[in-house]
Amino acid sequence: MQQPERGAGEVLGAFVADTDPGAIAPPLRHEAKRALLNFLGCALGVSRDPAVTTAIGVLRPFSGAATATLVGQAARLDAMGAAFVNTVAGNLLDYDDTHLATVIHPTAAVAGAALALAETRGLPGAALLHAFLLGAEVECRIGLAVSPGHYARGWHITSTCGVFGAAAACARLLGLDAAGCATALGIAASQSAGLVENLSYGAKNVGMGNAARNGLLAALFAEAGYTAAPTAIEGKLGWARAMGDVPRLPDMLDGLGERWEFARNTYKPYPSGIVFHALIDACLALRERLGAAVGGIESVTVRGDQLLLDRGDRVVRTARDSRVSIHHGAAVALLRGRAGVPEFEDGAVWDPAVAALRGRVRAVLDDAMPRGAVAVTVALANGRSETVRVEAARGSLEQPLSDAELEAKFRDNAALGGTTDAASAQIAAVWGLEEAGALGRLLGLMAGRA
Amino acid sequence: MQQPERGAGEVLGAFVADTDPGAIAPPLRHEAKRALLNFLGCALGVSRDPAVTTAIGVLRPFSGAATATLVGQAARLDAMGAAFVNTVAGNLLDYDDTHLATVIHPTAAVAGAALALAETRGLPGAALLHAFLLGAEVECRIGLAVSPGHYARGWHITSTCGVFGAAAACARLLGLDAAGCATALGIAASQSAGLVENLSYGAKNVGMGNAARNGLLAALFAEAGYTAAPTAIEGKLGWARAMGDVPRLPDMLDGLGERWEFARNTYKPYPSGIVFHALIDACLALRERLGAAVGGIESVTVRGDQLLLDRGDRVVRTARDSRVSIHHGAAVALLRGRAGVPEFEDGAVWDPAVAALRGRVRAVLDDAMPRGAVAVTVALANGRSETVRVEAARGSLEQPLSDAELEAKFRDNAALGGTTDAASAQIAAVWGLEEAGALGRLLGLMAGRA
Repeated sequence: MQQPERGAGEVLGAFVADTDPGAIAPPLRHEAKRALLNFLGCALGVSRDPAVTTAIGVLRPFSGAATATLVGQAARLDAMGAAFVNTVAGNLLDYDDTHLATVIHPTAAVAGAALALAETRGLPGAALLHAFLLGAEVECRIGLAVSPGHYARGWHITSTCGVFGAAAACARLLGLDAAGCATALGIAASQSAGLVENLSYGAKNVGMGNAARNGLLAALFAEAGYTAAPTAIEGKLGWARAMGDVPRLPDMLDGLGERWEFARNTYKPYPSGIVFHALIDACLALRERLGAAVGGIESVTVRGDQLLLDRGDRVVRTARDSRVSIHHGAAVALLRGRAGVPEFEDGAVWDPAVAALRGRVRAVLDDAMPRGAVAVTVALANGRSETVRVEAARGSLEQPLSDAELEAKFRDNAALGGTTDAASAQIAAVWGLEEAGALGRLLGLMAGRA
Repeated sequence: MQQPERGAGEVLGAFVADTDPGAIAPPLRHEAKRALLNFLGCALGVSRDPAVTTAIGVLRPFSGAATATLVGQAARLDAMGAAFVNTVAGNLLDYDDTHLATVIHPTAAVAGAALALAETRGLPGAALLHAFLLGAEVECRIGLAVSPGHYARGWHITSTCGVFGAAAACARLLGLDAAGCATALGIAASQSAGLVENLSYGAKNVGMGNAARNGLLAALFAEAGYTAAPTAIEGKLGWARAMGDVPRLPDMLDGLGERWEFARNTYKPYPSGIVFHALIDACLALRERLGAAVGGIESVTVRGDQLLLDRGDRVVRTARDSRVSIHHGAAVALLRGRAGVPEFEDGAVWDPAVAALRGRVRAVLDDAMPRGAVAVTVALANGRSETVRVEAARGSLEQPLSDAELEAKFRDNAALGGTTDAASAQIAAVWGLEEAGALGRLLGLMAGRA
């Protein structure tokens, strides 16, 4: 007898419910810790940002018993509110991780929801880590099946797919069986939203927070017995097609548990758009080479591919602009020898020296350049000229950030958030997540309670 | 100097913020009361339904101070939870109202959110009524601009547009100015979701509840200073185009405050799909004519248009099926002389007499029939034959339900929900909404507290 084909939700649900943590290779589990460390640092770094404190203020009257930690905050909220706020914070500057094949920032929504639920239910760090990893994988797989058309059409894929990842992770944490996990994904499909048009606005944060909050809600409704269409994701009137995509189901479903999209996760060394990272690498290297001579720069010529020029050849009017500007990225890296969060804030944007150097940067299309590569030539008033060429940026798949670099990024972020003394203990708690038992210590440290 | 064209959000925001209630004609304000009466009755009727009680159970741990009434429930929740639950209840059986041009059920999400917020903030009935009306109009206008493609593509338009209506109504209740109301709509755009694929499942309720809950959230974030793209609705990477639509902006924006889509709202006399209402009318008339002779029916022939046959010529296996079945609708109307909620529940579906008569109903395509018209011919064993033809169903725009009929429907629903003694007072409280001052008395009555 021919078996009916299994729906996408059924296949993904079985993967989420039935994957044995012991069958997940240690490097992948370590990657999950790297992702969490990076996420927690990013959230810590913006803990005083008005976008975050505003979200806490809006959600506070709608919080039940405050069972869940807010990263970098003394205040707590219920799991729904904490999922929202921590996800907003972790993704606020788009300084978190990136799954390059989909441009999903995979960790924020999944970790935001899973941490809040795990803490609320008193679940151990190992359960959190595995649920997070499974959720993030589902998120990237669903995104992969509709990329690149999905994002190009206007869907903020980190939100639209984040809700699936959050639902999957929460369903796993709740101990739902394969059918229950499938149902959670089906309910998530009816909550998937988020628009590219809104990316430069606060509305983007609401979309992100909702991805976490609604993913958690989907899992809770599945646990409570609500149902969803088995074909909610791939059906004729389901998620992918309504959103304008014909999903490539093999990308979504083939080799689950064998080939991991999450293994291709990357981490940003700079809080700017990823396409600018090779440029910044090159300019930091030039700064090293030139030292104080940077004061004598007459012109900066940036040779890059079409994507770089399309994205970054722009006038800089705001901090947001600065994060996607060739001119600004080059100028701050050359002048300050750093390209951290402060270099893309108002203080740097309006720094007269930076503004002046921005005006001397010229971007030139070079079709001979490999995709993503950049060559920067600096000409000094004294006639000296230096060129640095970078093919694979720091933080790319070819040049991944080391654990030590991720730790350094975490420390920088912690300092931005105003807490430095706990950083070593916080980092150690993340690396020890699988052995830690309950999450209380890690989260206490993250809230500054420990 | 040429003025820059105003964005859709700006135009709609000004309409929501600046419309003077006194400028809204009395018949429209009365229509809003009719819609609320109908909505509250529908919610009351399903107050013991597991879909509703489950939602309360899931949301209860995530409720702040319980400031808002749940229709037909002693329990209360915060405004976020109450918006969700009351919207789910009001729309649960799709027995609520219908804006035929879009097939939006306009009231549930807007009223669910607005009632919860108005009660929480202690706002008067008149403010609620006007905010509701403005929100419902925005919802229908946005839906009209993308119909019919939007629904056909798989978007549950009652959810996807409901979030805009809820956001608009809540923004008005919060007293936001035109820019604030526009921002609320822009934030709502990043939360718009809901799939036709999930319509027969609990996931549909989550989508509906979210439309209300997230609309409220959008307004609160706009109040708190979050921003949104001015072109979130109509922009190149905005709501309409991401969803696959090229919005017809004149349908959305022209003649706001003059031509009201909400004036075209309709109310269902039967809890079945609207295309079956003429059929049920005809069968109820036949039952009147035949009396006890219905026992001798040998065959029932239903002549209708393609839409009727496409939608309703089906095998009935569940209560849901029965609500969209030619055979069941004809059989219960003929046998029972009623077509209320109980006639589309399991008891009627599995009633052997109903099942037997369903088997004698034949649906025949009649291309000569005007759109929506039905002719039903009953042949009895004794050779007698009777035909009734209906062109405009009860509850259609041509045959709107009278206030008395809406009151009778409310009483039927109240009885289904297990409360009858308060019905007269509840009805009077809705009609007196604009004069009532605070909403406490109406909502106390709806909760059974008065």
